[in-house]
Amino acid sequence: MNLQEIVEQIYHESKPFAAGGKVATYIPALARIDPHKFGISLKTIEGKTYSVGDHKEHFSIQSISKVLSFTLAYSQLGADIWKRMGREPSGTAFNSLIQLEHEKGIPRNPFINAGAIVVADILCTLYDSPIEKLLNFANTLSGKANVAYNSEVAASEKSTGHRNYALAHFMKSFGNIHNQVDEVLEVYFHQCALEMCSDTLANVFLFLANGGINPHNSQPILNPSQTKRLNALMITTGLYDESGDFAFRVGMSGKSGVGGGIVAVIPNKLSMACWSPALNAFGNSIADIEAMERFTTYSGMSVF
Amino acid sequence: MNLQEIVEQIYHESKPFAAGGKVATYIPALARIDPHKFGISLKTIEGKTYSVGDHKEHFSIQSISKVLSFTLAYSQLGADIWKRMGREPSGTAFNSLIQLEHEKGIPRNPFINAGAIVVADILCTLYDSPIEKLLNFANTLSGKANVAYNSEVAASEKSTGHRNYALAHFMKSFGNIHNQVDEVLEVYFHQCALEMCSDTLANVFLFLANGGINPHNSQPILNPSQTKRLNALMITTGLYDESGDFAFRVGMSGKSGVGGGIVAVIPNKLSMACWSPALNAFGNSIADIEAMERFTTYSGMSVF
Amino acid sequence: MNLQEIVEQIYHESKPFAAGGKVATYIPALARIDPHKFGISLKTIEGKTYSVGDHKEHFSIQSISKVLSFTLAYSQLGADIWKRMGREPSGTAFNSLIQLEHEKGIPRNPFINAGAIVVADILCTLYDSPIEKLLNFANTLSGKANVAYNSEVAASEKSTGHRNYALAHFMKSFGNIHNQVDEVLEVYFHQCALEMCSDTLANVFLFLANGGINPHNSQPILNPSQTKRLNALMITTGLYDESGDFAFRVGMSGKSGVGGGIVAVIPNKLSMACWSPALNAFGNSIADIEAMERFTTYSGMSVF
Amino acid sequence: MNLQEIVEQIYHESKPFAAGGKVATYIPALARIDPHKFGISLKTIEGKTYSVGDHKEHFSIQSISKVLSFTLAYSQLGADIWKRMGREPSGTAFNSLIQLEHEKGIPRNPFINAGAIVVADILCTLYDSPIEKLLNFANTLSGKANVAYNSEVAASEKSTGHRNYALAHFMKSFGNIHNQVDEVLEVYFHQCALEMCSDTLANVFLFLANGGINPHNSQPILNPSQTKRLNALMITTGLYDESGDFAFRVGMSGKSGVGGGIVAVIPNKLSMACWSPALNAFGNSIADIEAMERFTTYSGMSVF
Repeated sequence: MNLQEIVEQIYHESKPFAAGGKVATYIPALARIDPHKFGISLKTIEGKTYSVGDHKEHFSIQSISKVLSFTLAYSQLGADIWKRMGREPSGTAFNSLIQLEHEKGIPRNPFINAGAIVVADILCTLYDSPIEKLLNFANTLSGKANVAYNSEVAASEKSTGHRNYALAHFMKSFGNIHNQVDEVLEVYFHQCALEMCSDTLANVFLFLANGGINPHNSQPILNPSQTKRLNALMITTGLYDESGDFAFRVGMSGKSGVGGGIVAVIPNKLSMACWSPALNAFGNSIADIEAMERFTTYSGMSVF
Repeated sequence: MNLQEIVEQIYHESKPFAAGGKVATYIPALARIDPHKFGISLKTIEGKTYSVGDHKEHFSIQSISKVLSFTLAYSQLGADIWKRMGREPSGTAFNSLIQLEHEKGIPRNPFINAGAIVVADILCTLYDSPIEKLLNFANTLSGKANVAYNSEVAASEKSTGHRNYALAHFMKSFGNIHNQVDEVLEVYFHQCALEMCSDTLANVFLFLANGGINPHNSQPILNPSQTKRLNALMITTGLYDESGDFAFRVGMSGKSGVGGGIVAVIPNKLSMACWSPALNAFGNSIADIEAMERFTTYSGMSVF
Repeated sequence: MNLQEIVEQIYHESKPFAAGGKVATYIPALARIDPHKFGISLKTIEGKTYSVGDHKEHFSIQSISKVLSFTLAYSQLGADIWKRMGREPSGTAFNSLIQLEHEKGIPRNPFINAGAIVVADILCTLYDSPIEKLLNFANTLSGKANVAYNSEVAASEKSTGHRNYALAHFMKSFGNIHNQVDEVLEVYFHQCALEMCSDTLANVFLFLANGGINPHNSQPILNPSQTKRLNALMITTGLYDESGDFAFRVGMSGKSGVGGGIVAVIPNKLSMACWSPALNAFGNSIADIEAMERFTTYSGMSVF
Repeated sequence: MNLQEIVEQIYHESKPFAAGGKVATYIPALARIDPHKFGISLKTIEGKTYSVGDHKEHFSIQSISKVLSFTLAYSQLGADIWKRMGREPSGTAFNSLIQLEHEKGIPRNPFINAGAIVVADILCTLYDSPIEKLLNFANTLSGKANVAYNSEVAASEKSTGHRNYALAHFMKSFGNIHNQVDEVLEVYFHQCALEMCSDTLANVFLFLANGGINPHNSQPILNPSQTKRLNALMITTGLYDESGDFAFRVGMSGKSGVGGGIVAVIPNKLSMACWSPALNAFGNSIADIEAMERFTTYSGMSVF
């Protein structure tokens, strides 16, 4: 089977699984998404694209944006970023706050909400217009300028974001937020509202399969060692409480969002983006995981 | 640089780091080990061996044995084993018991103590002589019969093992230990007392780099999918609270023990075993991690 | 209304509430108790007795015995006992183990299971025959020799006591159990199996309303200051997670057991024992609490 | 010894203990207080006053105000207030947030910060000018108009109150804060900034020893049952993690503040207010507790 046949087969086999999940409902813009949407896009480092379904439709990438904001901050601070956060899995969600208390306001990793808020704080310190900067960064990685913020989503995130306010104030009480909470969360709520299609998402993450080099303009984003490390970080922490299970079943470095997207990478080979809005109890897309598990099984390619 | 040059260079560069750690002292047999011991062994799936230092000296593999007992149980039960334990990282050690309570006596993964005790319980159910069976299994994987239990260590583990008794009784209160606690812990304390040299340890784990086939007799131990999954599990949970950091810095699927050993695997390529008894605050060998980080950097080989 | 009229009125008003609860079922001897049993006994320090219902029927006092074993240990060790346990409420049950871990094996107070197990350990150190000693102590307090162990209950407690084994081993890992776990728990399981009727139970606790003097033989058990302190301890910690609520609703120093008994004290006035086996979600007798709340309301007497 | 002799003796005996503590330093207005200040005031329900030391000097009552705001809310809502908060001790401070998460944003009691913030939210719903209302209420209880807010303290509380912002936003995420967080915390930060002398503080709390009747104008504040219940609540939860110890050592219903004040009540007898700014590790005044323990010992009066 060639790769196009594989993506089509996994599309058809995985699509029915969406019936077992539910779209996110905490904000209207997500609640009204059609749960039957499903797109798959595969990009190889040789420049080949394989896609199927709703792969040109824009969706809210939500927490997937945490990899982008982290990459931007990491590219500037290097290893100094680990003074502000850890790089360990966080265990179960239910004890996230006690861990933050026990560990004095230092989040366990950049991909839990607390960690991403610290990353947003770093961007506020680094840049005069961090929201604009992050958008430009995403567009540069995409190879073309079709990434945008959805301002309705950003506003909804803000109005329902009490728990994120709690996290930010709590970390500020430990001195790990340096800017004003409102300013920091404005960045955070915007990054959650980034929208793109799965084709673009796969493009944006291709640099992680390419040794840290942006394949669209050959500019280095991260050095090879940083790239290897970020891929490791994604495999241990990218899917919240389901990270271990995703590594176990799928065997790729991935990151999910409650908008229904998951993007994953096999170093030196390819990036893959899926989008299906129906989520499981962990907040991860059911059909996406099914598709990715089938992909590594049918293609014989994986990290391991 | 060829592989023999690399192992020698990393040996010399990493050896001094042992001065920053401490040998385990909770039992006499470990407390009296010379902290300057250091051995490195590398085995490729093509059958090549590269080694340096104290690579022929036997040491207590301790928690590394959890991979062996799990493999034996997994090879018999297959996916049914996940009814008894999870496959997620456990977060910080400090809340291991609350997680066990919250999750009704189901350990988060087979490589924390609670999980390994459930695995020992499974072996008690499967085999009449689980202690003998496990030793035979280890010897079969090693390619020759030079693995043995240290009975002094097993006895010491038992007399100081109050916390393991607590874990076993606690899980039994949830119905997740099926045999007598004393019987189950007898298996557990013995497996912790397995001894071998780093050459043998690398040999024993080579099947995980070889698609699940025992390279010494070409017999399948696990199927390719199970092998991929076990490697994923090791990378997310193999070094306790330092798993994320090990994945981040080293990028191999590894497992450590408080005897100072660490073994790691790059699928389809090689297995690597290091032994240096001086431990960091997480209970992992300092020099071993330094050596393995250098190995993936200098060789350019890693999982990612 | 005189006191006899009050106990009869509260008996009739409170009896129907038992229908909303369930008898303990974790051991057969408790599971087969008739849920409609209900007895109330009141003893004043002037020697008057007021009782109603099944007040002469023996029942398993279970955790109420923790006050007796603690009193015996406290009378011997005095303030030194606080090196081995605290005197603070324990917060919710769900985090009892994490508190024990956080506080290095020192239980929060003598009336949670962990604390009572430490008290049993102290009795093992103090006495050659702690089980016999405790029985004699209870009989001395009762004024006559009609307290006994139910050996079926003691055996059932042992065979289902995995969680208590876990607690004991866990505290032993911190050095806070000095004797063998089996020996300590033998005492603990026996004390839980003490049986008496509510008349006797009120008699046994009357010394706490009497400045620490055993009213049946005028011998001092505790000094006045210790007595005041033990009454304070019961009001803050005597009903597990419902202690605050019991103090709030009832306003007496009390202690409950899963056998359906509750005993309470108003210093310088009286002791009161109720028995109704149907329990609420906290493991406390529903009708007993209703009766005691009515008693302090109708009589105008309480601690506050 | 008469009561005046007792207060003078306990003053002299307890004063030196302040040397073992430290004044609160998180805001300048508290940090600059002279640690040698010490005042004691006793008021009986018969109208007698006994006082010694700095009993006419105003100080910041801080958390003691939580009883006043709660009383005001409780007098309006009655038992409905328990839909918004519990009445159980909170266990250790270190897990306050996990309890709040586990219990869905319902604080364990009104005297932890989370509970007091919910009470402030209730006052915002009940009154157009809750800050002015609370001040009037305190002055009515005091019998004269000499209670005031310290606006410097209120401003400092606000600028350092990140953890309280975190608590408020966290509870709002569970729906247990109904007004705007900023508005609610404005009330909360003001109440913490209430100032009065120990004479006035004893006056303000005398209604709790007087069956709920304001002794200064004979108006009922709470009914007798509510008053009994509030006294019970203070004894189980009034001194944070030291509540059990305070009940045990002192045996009065009390409430402390980080300004160094403690006020306590013996129902039907008296109220007692102490002020000494040097605090122990729990944030409670060392000399105050010494004085109160001596008071109940020397006078023979206590709750128990």
